Amino acid sequence: MLSQTVINRLKEIVGEKNVVTDKTGLFSYSYDGTLLSGEPLGVVSPQTTEQVVELVKYLNEQNIKLIPRGAGTNESGGSIPVENSVVVNFARMNKIIEIDTENFVAVVQPGVINFDLQLELEKKGFYYPPDPSSYKASTLGGNLAECSGGPKCFKYGVTRDYILGIEVVLPNGKVINTGGRNFKSEPGYDLTRIFCGSEGILGFVTKIIVRVIPKPITTRTMLATYEKVEDASQTVADIVAAGIIPTTLEFMDHLLINTTEDFSHAGLDRDAGAVLIIEIDGYPEDMDEQVEMIGEITKKANAREFRVAQTAAEVNQIWTSRRCAFGSVSRVRPSYGVNDITVPRSNFPQAIEGILKVAKDFGVTIGVVAHAGDGNLHPLILFDQRNKEEVETVHAAEQALCKMALGLGGTISGEHGIGLVKKKYLDSEFTPAAMEAFRRIKKTFDPQNRVNPGKIVNM
Amino acid sequence: MLSQTVINRLKEIVGEKNVVTDKTGLFSYSYDGTLLSGEPLGVVSPQTTEQVVELVKYLNEQNIKLIPRGAGTNESGGSIPVENSVVVNFARMNKIIEIDTENFVAVVQPGVINFDLQLELEKKGFYYPPDPSSYKASTLGGNLAECSGGPKCFKYGVTRDYILGIEVVLPNGKVINTGGRNFKSEPGYDLTRIFCGSEGILGFVTKIIVRVIPKPITTRTMLATYEKVEDASQTVADIVAAGIIPTTLEFMDHLLINTTEDFSHAGLDRDAGAVLIIEIDGYPEDMDEQVEMIGEITKKANAREFRVAQTAAEVNQIWTSRRCAFGSVSRVRPSYGVNDITVPRSNFPQAIEGILKVAKDFGVTIGVVAHAGDGNLHPLILFDQRNKEEVETVHAAEQALCKMALGLGGTISGEHGIGLVKKKYLDSEFTPAAMEAFRRIKKTFDPQNRVNPGKIVNM
Repeated sequence: MLSQTVINRLKEIVGEKNVVTDKTGLFSYSYDGTLLSGEPLGVVSPQTTEQVVELVKYLNEQNIKLIPRGAGTNESGGSIPVENSVVVNFARMNKIIEIDTENFVAVVQPGVINFDLQLELEKKGFYYPPDPSSYKASTLGGNLAECSGGPKCFKYGVTRDYILGIEVVLPNGKVINTGGRNFKSEPGYDLTRIFCGSEGILGFVTKIIVRVIPKPITTRTMLATYEKVEDASQTVADIVAAGIIPTTLEFMDHLLINTTEDFSHAGLDRDAGAVLIIEIDGYPEDMDEQVEMIGEITKKANAREFRVAQTAAEVNQIWTSRRCAFGSVSRVRPSYGVNDITVPRSNFPQAIEGILKVAKDFGVTIGVVAHAGDGNLHPLILFDQRNKEEVETVHAAEQALCKMALGLGGTISGEHGIGLVKKKYLDSEFTPAAMEAFRRIKKTFDPQNRVNPGKIVNM
Repeated sequence: MLSQTVINRLKEIVGEKNVVTDKTGLFSYSYDGTLLSGEPLGVVSPQTTEQVVELVKYLNEQNIKLIPRGAGTNESGGSIPVENSVVVNFARMNKIIEIDTENFVAVVQPGVINFDLQLELEKKGFYYPPDPSSYKASTLGGNLAECSGGPKCFKYGVTRDYILGIEVVLPNGKVINTGGRNFKSEPGYDLTRIFCGSEGILGFVTKIIVRVIPKPITTRTMLATYEKVEDASQTVADIVAAGIIPTTLEFMDHLLINTTEDFSHAGLDRDAGAVLIIEIDGYPEDMDEQVEMIGEITKKANAREFRVAQTAAEVNQIWTSRRCAFGSVSRVRPSYGVNDITVPRSNFPQAIEGILKVAKDFGVTIGVVAHAGDGNLHPLILFDQRNKEEVETVHAAEQALCKMALGLGGTISGEHGIGLVKKKYLDSEFTPAAMEAFRRIKKTFDPQNRVNPGKIVNM
């Protein structure tokens, strides 16, 4: 528990109403998108960089650890409080400071919700491509910390590709600025990207300059339905081989088709083995030809149905299916474990096979939703958290999934981060020398191990 | 001088003919694209990662410093040998290991010349976008070390955006592998990009996985000629505002038009104040409309002439003009100082004005070639290296250029690196805390300061 002296000082720094210490309040900040939890001693919500500096300095003096937090939607335990810690909640630093359409840049505070930025950008004809499924809740600071992906990475890349510069309060309370309003503003080594994907363990990002792009002139959304999973995989390979670069190549299997249909009523074929959501964008003149090519490719790959969304409402329904995928499985079993293993795209069919094998070997139910164009799969293991034996089986199955992905030349985590959940598998992906580099960089920035300790690597 | 014992051991490691210690041989490795030079004790050319490991370990024991080197084309002194050092020349590690068209990936050794990769890719319908003007000589390892740009960054980004993974021999001789055949293969923090742009001071990159893209179906190259520099600047703003994303928006001023014309005979108008080389790519159907729009924009901005290249030979001539720009000025004065200051694109006109002011204030001749779409300018200061007084004036003018760029929200170096040349200006761009971060990261990887010491920061 925090002493009254500490509480008073925190209130002085961030303001009376921006300090939470009551039991119910603390509970709200004790979990994230995983099944893990941990209670902090307090929650503070700074509104300025100067307040963050003050907080860092004061809590360092008090030997209290600090846990940065965006919206807490992350899937790897990255924002779970550890012992003797205060959560630094960035929800009140949610200003869009500037949208600079001349330089294709937006300057934001870290607590801005991804979707809110999209809305403001849309008014000016612009767009911020990395929009993870959580984008209606997740913050740009959180997206940066996890180097979030999303359904449009195949064409547009991940968060890393859109961060041009940051302001960071280091664990010693000093402030650095990196980058600028230009993707070439990165002399010396790349300080911006050391922080992007670092899961908040190296410091507190307090301002972000993001690259934005003109909103695509036209978009077309298609849905292809398959009896067999292999045929959907084949379609992905064939589309890419035809030289088409869709924005989206999203895959959902039979289980997910059914669980999402309950919510979205998009008219997905409940008997189907798999669907692909395919989206392209570009100049209006190119759309028809590409849609036709894609239609033919799906037919050649035995698609049962190929549908082109005709109205905005239809597009929205299809996307609702996809965006509600994670939550939708809760109707089947009370808990689910999300994974984000990623393999080279050409190994996507083998990864699907591998998942089926893991499900069989461990006797667990797994639904699959995937960013197929990125080779990034989200096998969702369904279980009941209250059943200890089942929980152990799920952990074993998760480990097997990671091993399988590594065996296919992939990674244990494509976009959700390592956090607490995958920390134990990280050294199966990296050599001891690389693990040592991870630890040393952490130590360089945070020698006392005070900022988000215990995430990614043990010190 | 190296002792015979050391020379013998080096020959054992890399082979007899891959060790250079004679005066003439050493001289060839004593300079780079700058006017600086420094003689190494020896030059070794490893052919395998294992040999690099052996070299690092052995030279560490001998307390001899190591200077990694690609083709030595860099413009910032990054590959200049320092005292008591051996150059590790990667020219013999020049194999294209694999081109994986399914995953849009090429795996290469660091000594592969950029142009050689382009040729191999072209056979398979692929393309590697970051092609700096030096691409016929510069290596992919060197491009990675400097995070090279080039004329097509406006649409396609810089080297950083195309590096998917690397193998690195650390200064302690240990090997790490980062990334993979997927842009989402970067769990933990971004080790790949810590090395990209680090100018070879953190270790030796021995293998690179690069992202490649399908070759654009159609390209159109245009040339717009202006009486006034301002009108060319205005065109850049207007094209971007029209929502067109060209691959190229290259600018050359009156002086460069004339010096390059001597070589390329592209028919540039020798009386003109400026030209813009504009290139677009995409689907054939979109080209005519965009060319027409661009033509109208240039006319509205008072272009004297707007020309669309009609044949491959014409395209080649225009590009020859641009690619020979740096070298071409040698006819005017014996030496030139290249700069690569970069500003937010919207400040391009002010940067041009700033350059003219510097030229006037310091009484120096400056020609300007620029990646105008990136706000990345190359003011070339012409002088005679043998005249000490003039050299001092040039240094003062360079400093003024850097200051001007920072004043416009830009950076002192957009694509050439810091090396030795800009080291003294780096702390005018970064806070002391950021400078400290640079030094600490160096120390983390290279505590003995043995690999490419003295570049970017003093330790």
